[in-house]
Formats: sequence, structure tokens, C-alpha cells
Amino acid sequence: MKPILVFQTDFTYKEGAVCAMYGVVKSVDRTLEIIDGTHEIPKYDIWSASYRLFQSMKFWPEETIFVSVVDPGVGTERRACVARTKDGYYVVTPDNGSLTHLKKWVGIEEVREIDETVNRLKGKGTEDVGVFHGRDLFGYCAARLASGIIDYEGVGSVYPVDEIVEMPVYEPVIADGYAKGIFEIEDPNFGNLWTNISLKDFNKAGFSYGDHVWVSIKHADEIKFEGSLLFERSFGYTEKGEPLIYNNELMKIALAANQDSFIEKYKIGYGSEWTVVFEKGGAR
Amino acid sequence: MKPILVFQTDFTYKEGAVCAMYGVVKSVDRTLEIIDGTHEIPKYDIWSASYRLFQSMKFWPEETIFVSVVDPGVGTERRACVARTKDGYYVVTPDNGSLTHLKKWVGIEEVREIDETVNRLKGKGTEDVGVFHGRDLFGYCAARLASGIIDYEGVGSVYPVDEIVEMPVYEPVIADGYAKGIFEIEDPNFGNLWTNISLKDFNKAGFSYGDHVWVSIKHADEIKFEGSLLFERSFGYTEKGEPLIYNNELMKIALAANQDSFIEKYKIGYGSEWTVVFEKGGAR
Amino acid sequence: MKPILVFQTDFTYKEGAVCAMYGVVKSVDRTLEIIDGTHEIPKYDIWSASYRLFQSMKFWPEETIFVSVVDPGVGTERRACVARTKDGYYVVTPDNGSLTHLKKWVGIEEVREIDETVNRLKGKGTEDVGVFHGRDLFGYCAARLASGIIDYEGVGSVYPVDEIVEMPVYEPVIADGYAKGIFEIEDPNFGNLWTNISLKDFNKAGFSYGDHVWVSIKHADEIKFEGSLLFERSFGYTEKGEPLIYNNELMKIALAANQDSFIEKYKIGYGSEWTVVFEKGGAR
Repeated sequence: MKPILVFQTDFTYKEGAVCAMYGVVKSVDRTLEIIDGTHEIPKYDIWSASYRLFQSMKFWPEETIFVSVVDPGVGTERRACVARTKDGYYVVTPDNGSLTHLKKWVGIEEVREIDETVNRLKGKGTEDVGVFHGRDLFGYCAARLASGIIDYEGVGSVYPVDEIVEMPVYEPVIADGYAKGIFEIEDPNFGNLWTNISLKDFNKAGFSYGDHVWVSIKHADEIKFEGSLLFERSFGYTEKGEPLIYNNELMKIALAANQDSFIEKYKIGYGSEWTVVFEKGGAR
Repeated sequence: MKPILVFQTDFTYKEGAVCAMYGVVKSVDRTLEIIDGTHEIPKYDIWSASYRLFQSMKFWPEETIFVSVVDPGVGTERRACVARTKDGYYVVTPDNGSLTHLKKWVGIEEVREIDETVNRLKGKGTEDVGVFHGRDLFGYCAARLASGIIDYEGVGSVYPVDEIVEMPVYEPVIADGYAKGIFEIEDPNFGNLWTNISLKDFNKAGFSYGDHVWVSIKHADEIKFEGSLLFERSFGYTEKGEPLIYNNELMKIALAANQDSFIEKYKIGYGSEWTVVFEKGGAR
Repeated sequence: MKPILVFQTDFTYKEGAVCAMYGVVKSVDRTLEIIDGTHEIPKYDIWSASYRLFQSMKFWPEETIFVSVVDPGVGTERRACVARTKDGYYVVTPDNGSLTHLKKWVGIEEVREIDETVNRLKGKGTEDVGVFHGRDLFGYCAARLASGIIDYEGVGSVYPVDEIVEMPVYEPVIADGYAKGIFEIEDPNFGNLWTNISLKDFNKAGFSYGDHVWVSIKHADEIKFEGSLLFERSFGYTEKGEPLIYNNELMKIALAANQDSFIEKYKIGYGSEWTVVFEKGGAR
């Protein structure tokens, strides 16, 4: 079977862009299977694009082709590429940081720059368009790759994996009875915040399910939250509305409020300026 | 052909959860067909999940498998189940009330608790995750059932249909020239409110298309709307912006404003605290 | 292969309507392929429905069947139709203006009124429903056409293409060093505004990439924006937040702010009351 195409963009469905892009895919090969990863990546947020690729990719069959288009630099000098990961997936994307987490945590085996003379849509009167590479370049090239019209070599020339654009990724600090990290991403729907601290490291620091843990959250140097929270397996171990520490779906430590939004309730954000410290000991 | 999988959740597409869940399905069996029912059930709103299943199910081919995950109690003691309806559909869902309307209005033939030792995702490093059963349990189990890897017996043990968790469903009161009900759900997009009164009962009470009917809406004991409204087949029978009574897509009596939101215009909600009375006679 | 069905509506995914509609399609023919064009057309906005059809259609394989349901007049006397375009696509839609741009810019070869006695859903207890033709009429009829149960003649009787309802479409005024048009649609996600002036006409007026062009925007007679903007191939040619003129994905002149919303930043709308004039000469 031909590989599945999974799309993620910041286009939304508010207008006709996704529809046009998918039309291009189906015009290359009617039999290709298209899946919406999401079209609601926050606008221009390359970091989120990178994280969402990491979050979902390993659950797909090998050879699946991800098309990730969060592309504020469309039509400028940033490279358009197809990367092959060490665990056997392809990512068709602007090389603008969207491969950050895969490169660091999974590994990129090879990367090729898309040859626009071959792998760009022609004949629809859009040759002079400089603003919609999702339709004219990424979607089109991905469809050709998935259909077997080109093989991976047919994408274009290899360039060094070292040259792939990366954003900084922060490591947690783990000690006995202590873990310090950042909120590296959010769950914007349920209002949860995901740290960069793994369950394994958290356990190593001495924290176990059932513990009450002292949590302090800072934005830059300002304290935004302090309190003793229960660490448990899931949300329902606290009362409705109560905050807790839990092990999230990627086996990382996260904060939530049961059937409520931790983010909104305590006005907490994510990114490298938001640090969180966990310490042994309950209420102070 | 293998049954279609129709998914409905409160996950939204704001992050990578749906994508990961669908990846699991496709990793079980590449040939399975996935359809988005909706991923915009209001957060934690089991009632809506239950209603939306009822609203759409009968229009699908028999044997279709619905995966409904609105699961505020994920990782706690609530059962994970697969129900078989009397009209031949399957529902994979937490047994937390989401089968309420199907049980009452369609009938559940049999229900089985998902055996997590068999029908839970393994090998992706998520065995200790307690918060995302849509991916690790419901999606995975549904894919196995759809693909034929397990049959219905393979889901797990039968338990009594009587034990399925139900929420209260209210019956309307019908008399001559009188109908009293509740708004049991809304159409949040168009701003319409759907009562629990069937067209058949409404006709039996003596109301016909073209009638002006006195409507009074209360929240608890407080009157929130009163007025004489036209009862007609569709919105366009009144002027733009004008309210009316109509027969909705499920053959139940509903309130709308033509090309406007009845909900927002008159600040009306839904649920058992919102009662509506229809009486013979026009303007008062 | 059977034609693909591409759906666009103003239903959103907030409740179960899309799910029910797709169920009907799959009950007609399990093998049909359904693609979401978009379900987020602004409510009741027939103009947008018409424009989005034009925007995406030509990128699809010929014979693709579009189902477009923005239908504020559902259940009233407006016709339900299937149009065949001159370039070989089908559109199943209420004839309420949603064919405006295709009729004017592509051409309609033939149009047929849907015969409800044949091509309307039966047997689900919804025969008396007057409000959801997306499910009971348009989706059902489109599925029958796609599956080959009926051919195009089987839709219903031909009526004159001249009778297709049209909304007014405005032409730009082009002179030497001067172009005047309207904003005919927006990109609501990225906050861009698309004029009715083609790149070709803009070039003919003497404007080239790299030029600074004087832009004045009026709502009715009131000036809402004035300034000298760079005309370039893409957003990244200006600083972040800065406005510019660019050639959009349909080869029409458009306004944007780099990684920002022109619409929100300058409070500009679209429609025939919003005129924009481009003149030679930079800052004044």
C-alpha cells in the first residue's frame, strides 16, 4: 500500500486553502489517503509544529509521510525539504525549526531539499504565486513521493543533517527531592501544561504517585504559582476544579486542574521563560 | 467490507491528540476507514456526547463502530466498554452516561467491558499512561474490532445492560392545546434550541404549521422569554431575525431565529432547568 | 474510480449535523470518498460559499462532485440543483447565489433541479423535516450521483443556466499608474484581504515587485487606511508586523501584514463597500 499522508498546518478550515491543497494531492494520485493531523497549529508557531510532529508520529505506521506547513517565511530563502527520520517516517516541511524535536529526540537520517524545477505544481496558472507552498510545493511533492512517481532521491539534493534549523530545547535539572524544568508545551483545549521532565526523571528525584509535592512556577523571575499539589495517575484523583501533577500521554510530568483549565485558572503560559520547580514536602 | 470507525470526542484539533489516536488505528490496520464525527463536543459534556450519538447514528450503515470519548473520569474506576445497540451498531466508550439516549430510545442489546490486558496499546512506551484512553484503549480496541482481529466476544466480559450508567431523561407533558418540555440540547452553531417534544406529540396537542403559539420559557422559576411565535416548517417563513417554532431534523419541536441566534438573542440555555411551555392562542 | 465528494457548509463540527450527513452518504454507497472542503463558511454567507468553490475547485480531479450547503432559505422556494461546470465539475447546492463566481469566471454548462420525489432520503423517519437538506437532499443526491445509481440526467429536469441566481461581482478600474478595486474576500485566519484586481492588471497599470505603492482604503466614503506599501512576492519581504501588497494564491493583488493580521490591525473589512485604490508614488 502507498504511504498515508498526514497534514498539519496553521491554515485552519476558515477558508479554502486546505481544500485547494488536498485537491492538488488527489490530482496527483486519486488513490492517496489523506488524514488531517491538525490545521489548528497556532499561527506562525514553528515550535508547536515541531512538538506536534514528535507527539503523534510514532503512533503511525512506518513510511507514513507527514506534511507540516507552518511557514511564516514562505517565499523567502528558507529551504523546503523532505527529512527521513531514523525510525522510518518522512516529513515534508519548510526547514525553519519544525524538525527540532524529531532531530533531537528521534534523529534525522537524511534530509533533501525539494527541487522546485521538478516537484512544484505546474499548469494551474499559479507558477508565479509566492505565498502558498502548502498547495504548490509541499502538498504536491508529498503526493508525488507517496504515489511513487518519485522516490526519496527524486525529491532533490541531499544536504547535511547538521544544517537543519533547530530551536533551543531545554533539559531539566534533577536532584534528590528536586526537579526543575520548563513548560515546553500546553494542551490548549483542556488547559494543561506539559513540562520537559520525564516520569522516569521525576521518579528518580524521589517523587511517587500519592505524594504531595511543592510546586513553584515563575515567569522570568516572578512567582506566578506556589502550592502543594497531589501527584497522581489521572485527573479524577482530585476534586473537580482542583489542580494536580500527573504523568501525561508522552510520559512527561504535567499540571492540570480536574475538569478545569490550569492555564486559565492560574494564568500560566509555556515557553523557556516559564520555569517550574518541584520539591519534596507538602503544604508550607 | 470492514466497518467504518466514526469518532467523536471533546479533544478538538488544537493539539496532537486526535492525530496520535488515528495513528494507533492505522497501525492496527492500514485499511480501516476513519471518519470524524466531531471532536468538538463541549469539554467533559457527557450529555452532549450521548445526544450526538443518538442524533447521527441511524443514518450510518449497520455495523458502523462509533468511538465516543468524553471521559472526565479517565484513569479512575469507571468502566471502559463496547455496547451493541438493538439496531446493529457498536459504541466504544467510557460507560459514564454516554450511552443514555441510545439505551433509552434505541436499546442496548449487549455490553462488554474492555479487557485491558488484551485490548490496550503496547510497545509504544505508554503502558503507564493513565490519561489518554482515546489513544491507548478506545481507539486501539475499536480498530481491533473493526479489522476483525477480535470479534465482539473478544472485547471482554459481558455485564448486565442494567448496569450501564444513565443520566435522567425528561418526558414532555402533552394536553389539549398545551405542551410542556425542556430544552434537551442546543444547536450551538446556529443558536437553536431543541425541545424533548416530538412533532407527533405537538400535533396531538393541537398545534399545526401556520399557527401562532404562545411560548413561555423559564429557568428554574424565572421567566426568561414570553411571546407568540409562528410554528412553521423552516426558518425562512419568518422575517430575518424573527423567532419561530419549527420541526427540527430529528422530528422534535425547536426554537430558532431566522438567520440569527435564538440562544444569544434571548439568553436561553439548555438542560433540565430550562422548561418551555407552548399554549394555544396568539398575542396576549 | 467513482468521483470524490467534497463538502463545504456553514454547519461547523459543533454538533452532529456533519456526522449525520456523512452517514447518509455512506449508507448510499460505502465505497464513496468524502473530503471536508470546509464546514466553517461564515454562517448564511452565500458569497463566501461561492468564492470558496471558485478558490479550490480547479485543483481537484475532473468529475469531482462538490456539495456546498450554505442555505439560509432551506425549506422555502429556492431551487435545489446540481450544476455542471464548463471545466467538468459538479456542484450540488441550493441555487441561491452560491454559483455566482463559477458562473461568471468558469462557466456553467448545464444545471438541473433536484427531483425530490426521487433524490431525497426516505425511510429514516425524516420525510417531514424541512430544515436539513444537507443531509436529506444534497448529501443524499450527491451520493447517488457519485455512486452511479443515477447519472446526471437522473438528478432532475434541466432549467436555463440564465436562471441561476447571481450576486453582483465588481470589476476593477485599471489605468496608467492606477488601480481601483474592492476587497472581494478575506483570509480570516491570517488576516489578509484579497482584492478583485489580478496581478496581470496590476502589472499593466505599471506596478512591479519592489515598488512602493500608495494605498488608500475607503469604507463607503470614509478613508480607513492610507499609506505607502511595498509590493512584493511574499510576506517575509517586510519586517514582522509591517503591512505589504502581495500577489495572492489566486494571482490577485492582496494586502497583508507580515505575521500579523492586516484586518485586525487596521480594522478593514470586505465587500463591495470597501474600495481600495493603488497609485504610483511612495510616501506623501
